[in-house]
Amino acid sequence: MPIVTAAMLVIGDEILSGRIREKNAGHLAAVMTAIGIDLKEVRIVGDDENAIIEAVNALRVRYTYVFTSGGIGPTHDDITAPSIARAFGLPWDYDARAMEILGSHYKQRGIEFTEARKRMARMPEGAFHIDNPISRAPGFLIGNVHVMAGVPAIFQAMLDNVVPTLRTGRTLLSRTVHCPVGEGTIGEALSGIQDDYADVAIGSYPKYDAGKFWTEIVLRSSDESRLDAAEETVRAMVNELAG
Amino acid sequence: MPIVTAAMLVIGDEILSGRIREKNAGHLAAVMTAIGIDLKEVRIVGDDENAIIEAVNALRVRYTYVFTSGGIGPTHDDITAPSIARAFGLPWDYDARAMEILGSHYKQRGIEFTEARKRMARMPEGAFHIDNPISRAPGFLIGNVHVMAGVPAIFQAMLDNVVPTLRTGRTLLSRTVHCPVGEGTIGEALSGIQDDYADVAIGSYPKYDAGKFWTEIVLRSSDESRLDAAEETVRAMVNELAG
Repeated sequence: MPIVTAAMLVIGDEILSGRIREKNAGHLAAVMTAIGIDLKEVRIVGDDENAIIEAVNALRVRYTYVFTSGGIGPTHDDITAPSIARAFGLPWDYDARAMEILGSHYKQRGIEFTEARKRMARMPEGAFHIDNPISRAPGFLIGNVHVMAGVPAIFQAMLDNVVPTLRTGRTLLSRTVHCPVGEGTIGEALSGIQDDYADVAIGSYPKYDAGKFWTEIVLRSSDESRLDAAEETVRAMVNELAG
Repeated sequence: MPIVTAAMLVIGDEILSGRIREKNAGHLAAVMTAIGIDLKEVRIVGDDENAIIEAVNALRVRYTYVFTSGGIGPTHDDITAPSIARAFGLPWDYDARAMEILGSHYKQRGIEFTEARKRMARMPEGAFHIDNPISRAPGFLIGNVHVMAGVPAIFQAMLDNVVPTLRTGRTLLSRTVHCPVGEGTIGEALSGIQDDYADVAIGSYPKYDAGKFWTEIVLRSSDESRLDAAEETVRAMVNELAG
């Protein structure tokens, strides 16, 4: 099965200024891993049309899917939709169905459907909606680029709607081995095991708990028997060096 | 005054797989904002030589400073130092002074200075050290690229050493608050205070002395009155939760 890859583009001055902590990349990463898509790159850029265009064009030709977060709200600095349209060389417009969804949403609540709020209906021509069950304003899919909200609860809800539509790769299996000593003690041996198992990704994560250093070793592969063999080898090494 | 810009490159499969949440970009963003440097872009790539080379070369020609985090530990997947050397077209070697620092560090502790640990002394030819007061293995500066550790406490300590060397418009002031309990007790409250003081970078450093855990909380800002207010809030929180 071919490997399916993804990249994420986070858009927002508030992230780069440190005013807001970025929270969507970690969620997307975990979801992609769980469904066997290989997240290869994340970029964070500001609310700047040229920066958005350059990044989305660099990423969309290189990876199977691109996911963006941020910049699709009602304020003047929310410029993601027209910027994505320009990246594709497409015109954008106020999407008729999005106008309907938002219009009826605000009418029900007795809130004025202002020009600012209408900005949330902007989409490149030919875009497909990504449903937003929380605040209604939809995200959209154009080409292989999923344009989603920056607010974590909305980003996550949109992603839940997108996942079933994705062509996922092999299912990535993983195994975790607890190692009671630090990386320095096992690094060399682990490196040797990695050389023997090129088809198993071996990561080691330094941990510090209750005054003691230890290491979590994670093995990932789509091939269960290779994963079994690599896991057994790592466990034997840990027992020998740290047992 | 000319605009000084920066970019960050986060390196590590463990971030892209969702196994570890990225924590250094937000801290760097807050510190850059406080000292008047414009953080323009963040990229996250995996432990992949070509991806590191391409990203660092794209960023270093475009921005005044580049900061990297991750991939300078002792294991086989720590390939940042040689990759950065290749990006600059420079040879790398085991830095003599780094070898001395690490050798004496491990000797004092009766720990073997293994081949794996020696990997942490690798640097491009002509690099300058960035001191690591925590686990000793230095980061380095080559050209305009600051290569630093991924472990947040070490990243923050290295950044403290780098900040005074940067060409900036503003002076970063700092305050230290001693907290007699570990991070777990105060983490949530501290996070709330950070949300209220976006213009003050708040770092916490876990400490362990004579069988007791404690935390050093460091606040940084270029605005003295905001720093005063944030310090007072942190001291009140510490007295309440740990007094």
